[in-house]
Amino acid sequence: MSNSTELVLPSNVIICEVAPRDGFQAVKDWIPTEDKIAIVKKLAQMGVQSLEITSFVHPKAIPQLKDASEVVEACQDLTDIKLRALVPNVKGAERAIDAGIKKLKLMLSATDSHSISNANCVTEEAQNGFLPIVELAEKRGVQVGGSISVAFGCPYEGKVPQERLDQIVKRYMEMGVAEISLADSTGAGNPKQVYEVLGYLRNRFPNMLFTMHLHNTRGLAIANAVAALQQGITNFDSAIAGLGGCPYLPGATGNVATEDLVNTFHEMGIETGMNLDTVIGVAKKVKEMIGHKGASYMLQAGPCSTLHAKPKSQKKVEK
Amino acid sequence: MSNSTELVLPSNVIICEVAPRDGFQAVKDWIPTEDKIAIVKKLAQMGVQSLEITSFVHPKAIPQLKDASEVVEACQDLTDIKLRALVPNVKGAERAIDAGIKKLKLMLSATDSHSISNANCVTEEAQNGFLPIVELAEKRGVQVGGSISVAFGCPYEGKVPQERLDQIVKRYMEMGVAEISLADSTGAGNPKQVYEVLGYLRNRFPNMLFTMHLHNTRGLAIANAVAALQQGITNFDSAIAGLGGCPYLPGATGNVATEDLVNTFHEMGIETGMNLDTVIGVAKKVKEMIGHKGASYMLQAGPCSTLHAKPKSQKKVEK
Repeated sequence: MSNSTELVLPSNVIICEVAPRDGFQAVKDWIPTEDKIAIVKKLAQMGVQSLEITSFVHPKAIPQLKDASEVVEACQDLTDIKLRALVPNVKGAERAIDAGIKKLKLMLSATDSHSISNANCVTEEAQNGFLPIVELAEKRGVQVGGSISVAFGCPYEGKVPQERLDQIVKRYMEMGVAEISLADSTGAGNPKQVYEVLGYLRNRFPNMLFTMHLHNTRGLAIANAVAALQQGITNFDSAIAGLGGCPYLPGATGNVATEDLVNTFHEMGIETGMNLDTVIGVAKKVKEMIGHKGASYMLQAGPCSTLHAKPKSQKKVEK
Repeated sequence: MSNSTELVLPSNVIICEVAPRDGFQAVKDWIPTEDKIAIVKKLAQMGVQSLEITSFVHPKAIPQLKDASEVVEACQDLTDIKLRALVPNVKGAERAIDAGIKKLKLMLSATDSHSISNANCVTEEAQNGFLPIVELAEKRGVQVGGSISVAFGCPYEGKVPQERLDQIVKRYMEMGVAEISLADSTGAGNPKQVYEVLGYLRNRFPNMLFTMHLHNTRGLAIANAVAALQQGITNFDSAIAGLGGCPYLPGATGNVATEDLVNTFHEMGIETGMNLDTVIGVAKKVKEMIGHKGASYMLQAGPCSTLHAKPKSQKKVEK
């Protein structure tokens, strides 16, 4: 039997930059509002089509994001980019829409244990709480996307059964949510699982748009992204300089770095609409500005398309 | 059209631990011979079936490995493991066989520029130089495996054309070499390329055993390993604690860490014959012993199969 010699992948992907939400919330030292705004504007220059700009949580829960409204208001000139914000409840959704947000993101956990830690209620209760947010969004004419944290594995419960994800996606669909970000919040997923879960979900819910939100805790984020590509997934979340790490998750490390994901896609001939050198430049700048220990392979080694000068002993081949 | 819901992968793999060669040669400070021997014996306890124990290069070229014969002689009791050693020439091969090595490994570079840097001659000359080694091996009754460095990309020349690899593999085959390790020495390969190159080579040379030797320079090593698995590859090189980095390669970082590869395989239900906790324990010990900055995801985050205790606020779900 002859081996297949082509790996069929999508030709284009859309990356959503999530550092201003998932990255900043993990930074302990206060990032001044004007720095946050400056960073968002730098990120916008990378050519991203979508950006998760902040979270309208209660200021006491995540003080770092208490200036959410100011940041959003100051970024209303970024008309080429879809700005989305996380909202945990109706009050947060109202604040977000008032500030100018056109796309809300809902977040719940795949397991009850994680849901209790994160939202103080089990998954089903959390999801029921989304109904008034979805109604508000409809009334005010803004979009809503859903998400599922620890979708591929929970630090308390382990692997998440497919039926559990099925149930949650079905409920989102019934509410009219047509887009769900599947978050591998602690890097518990593996490529076989990602491939198979996505195959299952896409067969069950052919009209749902699934996005992959990957963390690199066990070094599997890029392999998982490739498995998702093989299932035709074209939407990915990532954070510049690998920022991030959920405050409620033991052992969580950064999101997959935007520059590493862009490098991977470009190396495989997949277009992102972004320029890798620009992205690496922004990563360096952001790292400097917030002094975060975040890191990426691109920041360390650089792209492999950068050729090195041949050593002087190379005269033989120069002839 | 329904999405495929199974990623078909091999059920077993064989890992060759290469830290005592590829790892040690990158360590500047002298590792005492008794420490080298102690580390090899620790590595043997992990359940590896194959181990690249040293390199019989000229002591002036890599002083760290000048005790190759002593190390090999002291490890002759490891009869359950296939010990292989790198040999650059007939003299090295003789020393290796005299010390008790039963499997020699040949190494050349896919590109002329890299070959000049590494072996002071172009690829074809280097390969012609292997003939007397292969003849010696046959006479003395030991096995020979080949390898191709920078097989997926060269820091001086960039991507390596398939025809070039074809030529080198063909020549190895004509010499009677039946096993070739394809080394992505600077992490220049990507999963699409790895999948397609392996598909091509396996169709062209169905009787050749191909091994993947991956470095994680751009964070793609594990994704590349998965692409190789998808082509039915079952032999992988890796180094404990991610040690390694070729002294002749600009920007090269460590080999993919054995513990990260074992975790990946086990998570996908692929057997390695090794116990992950034991492997992580050995990685910690080796890192301590040689004070190397080498690192891995498993050393930092641990396996995701280790569940965390639920926070005390979890009473709701406990009921």
